[in-house]
Amino acid sequence: MTVQLLHHTPLWVCAMSIRKCWASEDKSDTTDDMVIGHYLDYDYIQYCDEAGPRDKELIHRVGNKNKHSSTLEHLNYSFDIDGISRACLQELARHRHTSLSVKSTRYTLKELKNDNGFNKYLVSTGDEELDEAAVDQLIIVQQALQGGYSNDKVKYLLPESYKTSLVWTINARSLQNFLSLRTDKSALWEIRELAYELYNKLPEEHQYLFEEFVKDN
Amino acid sequence: MTVQLLHHTPLWVCAMSIRKCWASEDKSDTTDDMVIGHYLDYDYIQYCDEAGPRDKELIHRVGNKNKHSSTLEHLNYSFDIDGISRACLQELARHRHTSLSVKSTRYTLKELKNDNGFNKYLVSTGDEELDEAAVDQLIIVQQALQGGYSNDKVKYLLPESYKTSLVWTINARSLQNFLSLRTDKSALWEIRELAYELYNKLPEEHQYLFEEFVKDN
Amino acid sequence: MTVQLLHHTPLWVCAMSIRKCWASEDKSDTTDDMVIGHYLDYDYIQYCDEAGPRDKELIHRVGNKNKHSSTLEHLNYSFDIDGISRACLQELARHRHTSLSVKSTRYTLKELKNDNGFNKYLVSTGDEELDEAAVDQLIIVQQALQGGYSNDKVKYLLPESYKTSLVWTINARSLQNFLSLRTDKSALWEIRELAYELYNKLPEEHQYLFEEFVKDN
Amino acid sequence: MTVQLLHHTPLWVCAMSIRKCWASEDKSDTTDDMVIGHYLDYDYIQYCDEAGPRDKELIHRVGNKNKHSSTLEHLNYSFDIDGISRACLQELARHRHTSLSVKSTRYTLKELKNDNGFNKYLVSTGDEELDEAAVDQLIIVQQALQGGYSNDKVKYLLPESYKTSLVWTINARSLQNFLSLRTDKSALWEIRELAYELYNKLPEEHQYLFEEFVKDN
Repeated sequence: MTVQLLHHTPLWVCAMSIRKCWASEDKSDTTDDMVIGHYLDYDYIQYCDEAGPRDKELIHRVGNKNKHSSTLEHLNYSFDIDGISRACLQELARHRHTSLSVKSTRYTLKELKNDNGFNKYLVSTGDEELDEAAVDQLIIVQQALQGGYSNDKVKYLLPESYKTSLVWTINARSLQNFLSLRTDKSALWEIRELAYELYNKLPEEHQYLFEEFVKDN
Repeated sequence: MTVQLLHHTPLWVCAMSIRKCWASEDKSDTTDDMVIGHYLDYDYIQYCDEAGPRDKELIHRVGNKNKHSSTLEHLNYSFDIDGISRACLQELARHRHTSLSVKSTRYTLKELKNDNGFNKYLVSTGDEELDEAAVDQLIIVQQALQGGYSNDKVKYLLPESYKTSLVWTINARSLQNFLSLRTDKSALWEIRELAYELYNKLPEEHQYLFEEFVKDN
Repeated sequence: MTVQLLHHTPLWVCAMSIRKCWASEDKSDTTDDMVIGHYLDYDYIQYCDEAGPRDKELIHRVGNKNKHSSTLEHLNYSFDIDGISRACLQELARHRHTSLSVKSTRYTLKELKNDNGFNKYLVSTGDEELDEAAVDQLIIVQQALQGGYSNDKVKYLLPESYKTSLVWTINARSLQNFLSLRTDKSALWEIRELAYELYNKLPEEHQYLFEEFVKDN
Repeated sequence: MTVQLLHHTPLWVCAMSIRKCWASEDKSDTTDDMVIGHYLDYDYIQYCDEAGPRDKELIHRVGNKNKHSSTLEHLNYSFDIDGISRACLQELARHRHTSLSVKSTRYTLKELKNDNGFNKYLVSTGDEELDEAAVDQLIIVQQALQGGYSNDKVKYLLPESYKTSLVWTINARSLQNFLSLRTDKSALWEIRELAYELYNKLPEEHQYLFEEFVKDN
């Protein structure tokens, strides 16, 4: 699988949100050098992803320790996730405070019709015999496509190891919940791998907010 | 597939909710004969599913016509859905204002290990050749199970026609959205069938709220 | 304030939902005597609110201890809440996984125009001097109404102690979160009182699911 | 009131999300000149807010016309909203697919204790007599603060014209719903003004997605 962070909200938006509650904006240490005139110069602040150490500590204290978790919802992350299985998608889609746009088998299944490079369409289980069995199943799918059946019928034959691709947008609060459940040893191996990968692709400056939710590998 | 309505909120709860906004509770025609002393006799009202004609018209006017849709969210429906495919589940789970508890392949796949009645595990596409191909795939799954592989690996071989089962709770507002999208001719044939079945299993007294969202079959 | 439970989902719906995941419906001890033929006799099961001791323990173990919290979302509670202040409503409405239908000041403010029983419109702070000040403010509101100003302008003068009324629907998972935050000593006194009242009005058989979230008064 | 857009997701994230569904990424006309190597050069793409005309048309066609609205949820907007009344906040907070961090009267009410510039704390109704009445009420509040009463009691005396301030994050789909309901002639005058202001502060390049939801002023 490959995971890429397409876009995210900068940390200072969260810091400003928290400071709203106490009207303590003037105590922010996200300095002018970091966000020059951020109430004046909108064009600049879009592009800034900085927050001072005091502001970073504030976010952790209020959002994590004091459980005022809604303040973390201002931080949104959009990931490009490519090459996970549809088995893994079944679990991913069960998390509901997210938005996802997924490659449709109904519209794209024809890609299989004349392509014998089966392995590139399948997530490997790490076991050779099973992976070969999956190729056997994909051959059955291909034959059905070549037999002229519609995607809407043939898709029922797809093995769940079939690869898919999606854009996934999730806020920091939901992502904490996701990482906590899906880095757990009891999670399915592939979504566990995905969870670590998502964490690793977070902006380095944001990772401290998620550390305590990520379980040891 | 079989769909059963396990539980639902009675209509009068929605009527009372709307009347709250205008403090017009005294104009309700959900009479004492229908809901005897519903503010006095709690034990009874749980079991009543009536609303007077004026109240029913009110719900339709405010919730549907005047688009004060949040009032419809007080009505919750819990369905038992059995025998849809995991292909259909992929689409069902994409609707997010719902709660769903789904049969886990991770925990139950062993059911296949020594059972040769393959057809009962598969949703038929209505095409004999494809259905036979699905059985061929299930045989491959069974062999993997007999080979001692874990459910967490073997599940990757499952064809998406494999049947699943769930309890699904959804409120009236979300269900309107679901029915509107999934009874459309452009919807996948199986989820379209499910959408009609869900509508048919609604309490007769509630169906009028959904009629305009259900497209002609 | 007065709180009444208008309707709720029976516990057995949650037990059945959990048993779906493991396909362990046959291990349920919600017996025929409690829910006679609940897959056969729909008319009856609507009205049953029982679950066997094994099923009750299961709900607690899976939903609370094992944090499979989504299974608790099948349980919905609709409360009638009357006589809380609009100050309290400001906080209540901040909880977002709920549905609420609230008495509209825009439509009902005329009730004040010719009624001098001011106290019945106000939540008492428990301090006589402040309560008298609130009456002074309500007199100002009344004068504005008598001066012919529209509700949409006069409502801006309303003190936040002004009483309101609503129907509030919330599922068990969100209610646990609400009770945990709002029975805390740091919560506003009135919403804290409301939180205890909501807990007390839950069906006795359901309260065990919430106990650990309710903080000592 | 003053409204400022603090941050938003660039349009191309939405275009890429839609193209995922059909695996049509190669048909994007968000050119290299706009987003130079956006899968290669992450540092750059964060800062780019462009999309080609074909991609912009695609977003409108799929997200608006074809009602695949979930694709619009990838676009998030964080607004700083300052100087709306707590009456307006009551309505704003009723929209639930949003995240909001609000100035707390519990923590900040002391600002009123020794400040006689009452008008700056109040939203004007446009009517002099009513605005004077609001000042009278604020004087009562000030006296209570000077009398040593706690914020948690005094806040019950606040008139709903009292100004508040918040950071509000909302996605494009929810914002369409908000604008549609709140630019309507039947909406409260202040939230109507806010709705137009929010629309005006959207990035010019994004406004076309919302035009059909904004009603004539």
